[in-house]
Amino acid sequence: MAMTSQKRVHYFGKTKSEGSKEMKDLLGGKGANLAEMTSIGLPVPPGFTITTETCAEYDAIGRKLPDGLLDEVHSNMALLEEETGKKFGSEDNPLLVSVRSGAAVSMPGMMDTVLNLGLTDKAMDGLADVSGNRRFALDAYRRLINMFGDVVMEVPHHIFEDEFDRIKDKYDVSEDTDLNEAGLEELITAYKAVYKNSTGDDFPQDPYLQLEKAVEAVFKSWNIPRAVRYREINEITGLLGTAVNVQTMVFGNMGDDSGTGVAFTRDPSTGENKFFGEFLINAQGEDVVAGIRTPQNVDEMVKWRPEIYEQLLDVKRILENHYREMQDIEYTIEKGNLLLLQTRNGKRTGRAAVKIAVEMVVEGRITQQEALLRVPANDLNQLLLPTFDAKAERDILTVGLPASPGAASGKIAYSADEAVDRTHEGESVILVRKDTSPEDVSGMHAAAGILTSTGGMTSHAAVVARGWGKCCIAGAGEVVIDEKNRCITINGRPFGGQDIISIDGSSGEVMAGDVPRKEPKLSEEFKSLMEWADHYRTLQVWTNADTPQDAERARNWGAQGIGLCRTEHMFFEGDRITDMREMILADNLEARQVGLDKLLPHQREDFKGLFTSMQGLSVTVRLLDPPLHEFLPHEEHLQQELADRLRVPLEKIMARVTQLHETNPMLGHRGCRLSISYPEILVMQATAITEAAIECKQEGIDARPEIMVPLIGTSKELSLLRKQIETTIQGVKETKGFTDELAIPVGTMIEIPRAALTADEIAKHADFFSFGTNDLTQMTFGYSRDDINSFLPNYIRHEILERDPFQSLDTTGVGQLIAMAVSKGRGEKKGMKMGICGEHGGDPLSIRFCHQIGLNYVSCSPFRVPVARLAAAQAAVKK
Amino acid sequence: MAMTSQKRVHYFGKTKSEGSKEMKDLLGGKGANLAEMTSIGLPVPPGFTITTETCAEYDAIGRKLPDGLLDEVHSNMALLEEETGKKFGSEDNPLLVSVRSGAAVSMPGMMDTVLNLGLTDKAMDGLADVSGNRRFALDAYRRLINMFGDVVMEVPHHIFEDEFDRIKDKYDVSEDTDLNEAGLEELITAYKAVYKNSTGDDFPQDPYLQLEKAVEAVFKSWNIPRAVRYREINEITGLLGTAVNVQTMVFGNMGDDSGTGVAFTRDPSTGENKFFGEFLINAQGEDVVAGIRTPQNVDEMVKWRPEIYEQLLDVKRILENHYREMQDIEYTIEKGNLLLLQTRNGKRTGRAAVKIAVEMVVEGRITQQEALLRVPANDLNQLLLPTFDAKAERDILTVGLPASPGAASGKIAYSADEAVDRTHEGESVILVRKDTSPEDVSGMHAAAGILTSTGGMTSHAAVVARGWGKCCIAGAGEVVIDEKNRCITINGRPFGGQDIISIDGSSGEVMAGDVPRKEPKLSEEFKSLMEWADHYRTLQVWTNADTPQDAERARNWGAQGIGLCRTEHMFFEGDRITDMREMILADNLEARQVGLDKLLPHQREDFKGLFTSMQGLSVTVRLLDPPLHEFLPHEEHLQQELADRLRVPLEKIMARVTQLHETNPMLGHRGCRLSISYPEILVMQATAITEAAIECKQEGIDARPEIMVPLIGTSKELSLLRKQIETTIQGVKETKGFTDELAIPVGTMIEIPRAALTADEIAKHADFFSFGTNDLTQMTFGYSRDDINSFLPNYIRHEILERDPFQSLDTTGVGQLIAMAVSKGRGEKKGMKMGICGEHGGDPLSIRFCHQIGLNYVSCSPFRVPVARLAAAQAAVKK
Repeated sequence: MAMTSQKRVHYFGKTKSEGSKEMKDLLGGKGANLAEMTSIGLPVPPGFTITTETCAEYDAIGRKLPDGLLDEVHSNMALLEEETGKKFGSEDNPLLVSVRSGAAVSMPGMMDTVLNLGLTDKAMDGLADVSGNRRFALDAYRRLINMFGDVVMEVPHHIFEDEFDRIKDKYDVSEDTDLNEAGLEELITAYKAVYKNSTGDDFPQDPYLQLEKAVEAVFKSWNIPRAVRYREINEITGLLGTAVNVQTMVFGNMGDDSGTGVAFTRDPSTGENKFFGEFLINAQGEDVVAGIRTPQNVDEMVKWRPEIYEQLLDVKRILENHYREMQDIEYTIEKGNLLLLQTRNGKRTGRAAVKIAVEMVVEGRITQQEALLRVPANDLNQLLLPTFDAKAERDILTVGLPASPGAASGKIAYSADEAVDRTHEGESVILVRKDTSPEDVSGMHAAAGILTSTGGMTSHAAVVARGWGKCCIAGAGEVVIDEKNRCITINGRPFGGQDIISIDGSSGEVMAGDVPRKEPKLSEEFKSLMEWADHYRTLQVWTNADTPQDAERARNWGAQGIGLCRTEHMFFEGDRITDMREMILADNLEARQVGLDKLLPHQREDFKGLFTSMQGLSVTVRLLDPPLHEFLPHEEHLQQELADRLRVPLEKIMARVTQLHETNPMLGHRGCRLSISYPEILVMQATAITEAAIECKQEGIDARPEIMVPLIGTSKELSLLRKQIETTIQGVKETKGFTDELAIPVGTMIEIPRAALTADEIAKHADFFSFGTNDLTQMTFGYSRDDINSFLPNYIRHEILERDPFQSLDTTGVGQLIAMAVSKGRGEKKGMKMGICGEHGGDPLSIRFCHQIGLNYVSCSPFRVPVARLAAAQAAVKK
Repeated sequence: MAMTSQKRVHYFGKTKSEGSKEMKDLLGGKGANLAEMTSIGLPVPPGFTITTETCAEYDAIGRKLPDGLLDEVHSNMALLEEETGKKFGSEDNPLLVSVRSGAAVSMPGMMDTVLNLGLTDKAMDGLADVSGNRRFALDAYRRLINMFGDVVMEVPHHIFEDEFDRIKDKYDVSEDTDLNEAGLEELITAYKAVYKNSTGDDFPQDPYLQLEKAVEAVFKSWNIPRAVRYREINEITGLLGTAVNVQTMVFGNMGDDSGTGVAFTRDPSTGENKFFGEFLINAQGEDVVAGIRTPQNVDEMVKWRPEIYEQLLDVKRILENHYREMQDIEYTIEKGNLLLLQTRNGKRTGRAAVKIAVEMVVEGRITQQEALLRVPANDLNQLLLPTFDAKAERDILTVGLPASPGAASGKIAYSADEAVDRTHEGESVILVRKDTSPEDVSGMHAAAGILTSTGGMTSHAAVVARGWGKCCIAGAGEVVIDEKNRCITINGRPFGGQDIISIDGSSGEVMAGDVPRKEPKLSEEFKSLMEWADHYRTLQVWTNADTPQDAERARNWGAQGIGLCRTEHMFFEGDRITDMREMILADNLEARQVGLDKLLPHQREDFKGLFTSMQGLSVTVRLLDPPLHEFLPHEEHLQQELADRLRVPLEKIMARVTQLHETNPMLGHRGCRLSISYPEILVMQATAITEAAIECKQEGIDARPEIMVPLIGTSKELSLLRKQIETTIQGVKETKGFTDELAIPVGTMIEIPRAALTADEIAKHADFFSFGTNDLTQMTFGYSRDDINSFLPNYIRHEILERDPFQSLDTTGVGQLIAMAVSKGRGEKKGMKMGICGEHGGDPLSIRFCHQIGLNYVSCSPFRVPVARLAAAQAAVKK
């Protein structure tokens, strides 16, 4: 790293301000904004910021402060002394500073704050003189020794606490603030002894040594496990390090004309345009945080210091005008003077984000496009799903993967059948399983929510639940399931079948008891934002839906078509699964045909329902995809049940299950490979689709089916199957004597790398492409979705992967194949319709990529439709 | 198909010859060569050929003869009549013709031959007059009715036979030839009745109707199951159809001055330059085939007709001069006149191919380059492996997949342990299993051969066996194994543990008893051919070897390095597997390290052995690749055994097995993902490699290890692991105080699509690429090697795939990724070394592709090295 020649320290103050809000990467968010506020004339205590590059340099050269840094610090400190008229470490009028970390992205977990730095035995006396308040000076000094010892030197905090308690006992006081000067003197002596005992050194009497150690501690804290872990969880990558902010101390604890507070320029929970915050009289910032005293609502300030309140409203106005965004500020009032210590864009709920963005457009502060970019698309989910009341008590048992958002409470059901039965009896149940399989689908559908102890964000449970918008937590490894005794244990706490648990699918929290919920109500602002989104986006948003209910819901949310109707789910309902199993167990075509003939009318009715719900819009039906063994029972007692029902020997069922077993089912006999082996299944499905479409048309319903062939890897597969599909459609038309227009486009999923590589050949036989990015990701990476959790967390930790590629599309590798297929496909067939129907269709980052490479639509689960609409608009606007 | 305007019939005769040997695609091999021989003045009965395009047309327009075809046939027939002075169907001097099929590639299974076509009641009388031999004419007529009825009209052959037997009984004769004229007259009447009864029509008395029906029958026979199946088995694709050859009849059965024979211009078994063949006096061609009379060796002809023998030697000379290839001819001698009915390049054994090619160079007929192209590279295998004596009796029980060439006989062993034990006791055993897994490796190694009832050409058994050059038949589905009762049944015949079977890994034949074998002896011609191959090829040939024995063998065969040393096999030997299992069962790093410390010295010794065998040549060591569960026992009694040995509870082992279980192990926690999770395993292996190299160097052995990281999908994986490997190497050097030059290149396998797509990034951290085309094929196609047999045969049948992509590289899809990786990799790092180490490294078609895209080497199993050397030369010469 060749950054030694660069400027490492940036000053902010009356003399000069060397930063601006655009310099977050270099100065951190806090440092950049302190400089910015200084520049626009707001009252900010002067100081300087050491750059994030210096932090990276510190690490790169083996964790030591680079040569020359301290010289720069010295010269900036000299300027600060000049501007404040105080002197660092002086016994006359000592300059005290705070030292705070601050990265480009707000990040708890790192070293936070050391206050009152610069106090020494001598300077303490000076401070006492200058302030005329020896008790204040003593208190400041004991705080420094404590904080410096704790935060910088890693002296266990409780040792200081113990001494404090001992001395309070001795002086017979209960509150810290009641200790008198003598007590504080004694406390300081005791703290110094603690410091010496723990570190081996005297508490430093050289203020520059204090500063040097504090700066180093901030740099070190960038890589402590807590901070690393936080970046992992929040997927924060690509940062250089943290900056260090050294700022003149101001005191909110200099009497009843002093105070401290935090505030938002608008309500961060509702978005209401109202100054919002809390303050404490005669206190320092950390007292607010420590929660020792209950702060007052900022509205109360009018009674205490109306002129300060007015000043704060001015600050709100100036900051919002300047930043054109809702701000989160920290301030101190020192002897009646308001001083700002921080401003940053305020964190807010999804609901508030929408309201603020839309109102700011109305206020003329920002454009519609900017408003669209202000709301994190994923946050819309919060507006759409029931949530637990934020104010409710949560008895958190463990935290799993937030697989599908929502809030559900219920008694524990241990099997799919149990979940169905108990739901029928009117109970609300949470289905708790190690994992789930297609056999469990009815139970999953019945349950209020799903909790699994294994599996990832794209496990069967997670995918199915998200498709339904059903609350689900996956991979909660601390949940130990004892199915036999119908009992689960979470971190040692047992729960039986009658115990209620609550699961929060947005946070992954598993909680004891029935946590109260809130139903969402959509605001006018939400509707405005969605209107703007639809105006600006060019990418269509379709949905993945298998039932008329899902289709209608999605259509209400704005879906413009069905991009993926999975027909396999239709085979699990009611008695159909028996017919399906009969078909699979058949020894020959004739017997197979008997099963298929029974399934045909069901399929036809399913399709009629879907076409009716979506009339006027495309419904893309995917032919049977999963390997046949997924439809057979794998547990012996279920196999016996099936044998009894079908009157075949158990051995026959077991033999078929064994025969169909595959080492790697993901790469096995499935998708269009089934249609090649058993063309009669394809014929049945194409017949059902065509018959349903004709019946709809005859009833005046504008049915628009499209047939999608899954797992194509060679153009010959598609040409062969397309011919069979077309022959079938033609045959049905003739049988039905239907002569009107009925075009059923035939397309394919591009979900195998080879399909992308040979997309030009495949395009010759396809009317459209739909990228199945789940499987494409599995094969391009060689990752099995079901098994990835054994190494994925480690991969994220080592930054080998930026994020789970099943959640957010890998644009470098998988995306390269998609872009190749788009270009090859459209090279062969100009303007060919292309979409994406994998899980990624609802992920904003992936949607942006889809927009960039010119796809026509993304298709996502119904509940993700508004998110996708917003994300599509953001992609269009960002361009 | 727009071929209606094309010429459909091509004439050959004195008048004109409208074909040549270059027109095989259009005229079929037989037709093209009849025209060619006519052109160069050899005696060929005149005739004409209907093109293969006409056959395709016949199919395309719904199986009927295209308009205009019969007109063309008529006019050619008129020319034929003019040239021969005979007339088709005439009662004076009737023209008789044969009708034969003939595709571009020789293909048994289609309709073969109808002789004497043109005979009717009237023409028969004419033939009797002209020949002065009524018995001959009657015999010719009964043959026609029989052949036409049987071959063209599909009258069951046995009905004719029954009539013949009845009449022979009546006339009290035993041989066909003994029947007198009266008997033949009666036979003809009986045959006509059979024909009428079976077809509903009279035997056609219009010769053109006979011809029309015969032509149609030939076209139809192109698509009969037998022919389709033959093309499947022999991977013959891309042909238009069959041609039809209509040729003037000549008769070898016109007396003792007539005869018929087949001959090769050189010995097709040994390659010796000696006229080779058989003949029959006074007989027609089909008599030779029918085997009713035993033919004489062609050498005997000198005694019978020395002038004909001389004529045949002339023909040999003319044909070899003209075709510059060994020919296989059919001829007839009609009343002392030699007439040629067919010539084609003669099929030959691998041994003969080599001898003939090399001798033809010496004779100055062909160049060295041509000689290299004359020997199918795969045929070299026949020269290298022991084979069953071709003359030995074979009691064939079933035919499986010829997974690994060789010839083995032995008693049946039912488990790996049994195979080891019985081999130790001096028995020769064939290990017969449903399939095999790494647990079986020791038993597989011990056995003389391996037979599995499931799995394909690239199943575990097949791959491992080929790697060792051990005979193996896989997927022999008719072998039913009753492990419990130690018995197998093949097509109803039971075999116990003491019964001997023989397996032919080149043909897939499973035979009863101990079939005698022959050991191979390499000829001087083989050595010459290999020298020329090495001279012309530019692609290096390396080998896949895990043991010093394999390495030495491969080096003797000409291997120029080890491209793949799989370290996992090293963990199965002796007690090591217990140490390995202990390591896998460890709960923490410390315990794991204990196991690794035990494994280290073994690994080091293994590597020392390899480096010594290959001194001066590269040894590419792949780090541990398979998922850990492959090393654990999966059967409960073996788990119990392990539990006892390691003194841990059985439950612990079962739990670990369950924990390591994966839904799709192929896409799971393996390859470099293991090294990321358990860097200590990588460190152990890198340490062992470095220590072994240093010890070799200190003993004066030029060790050249290279370290290969498997399953890389992202550049960050490699940069991370490379750093750890380099640190380890450096550490070992320092510990050992080794200061001499020791460069250990670190490269990676490109076996995941994403690695190919991002090869430019990966190349930054790799010294070489080795394409792992097995896995790359699995992931690019989405095919699991272990499961592909459920649909692959069907895919080949439907011509969706030309061939098994695990046997021969899919150059369109997988090849596209490889070419991309080569270009991206070398774009980043000019001249970067690249090779291939998948199964395809030994496949000639794949080797050709590797040559074309500029790889540096292919690496294949030791026994494939000569094949690869020849294939590499062919690729270079063909260019």
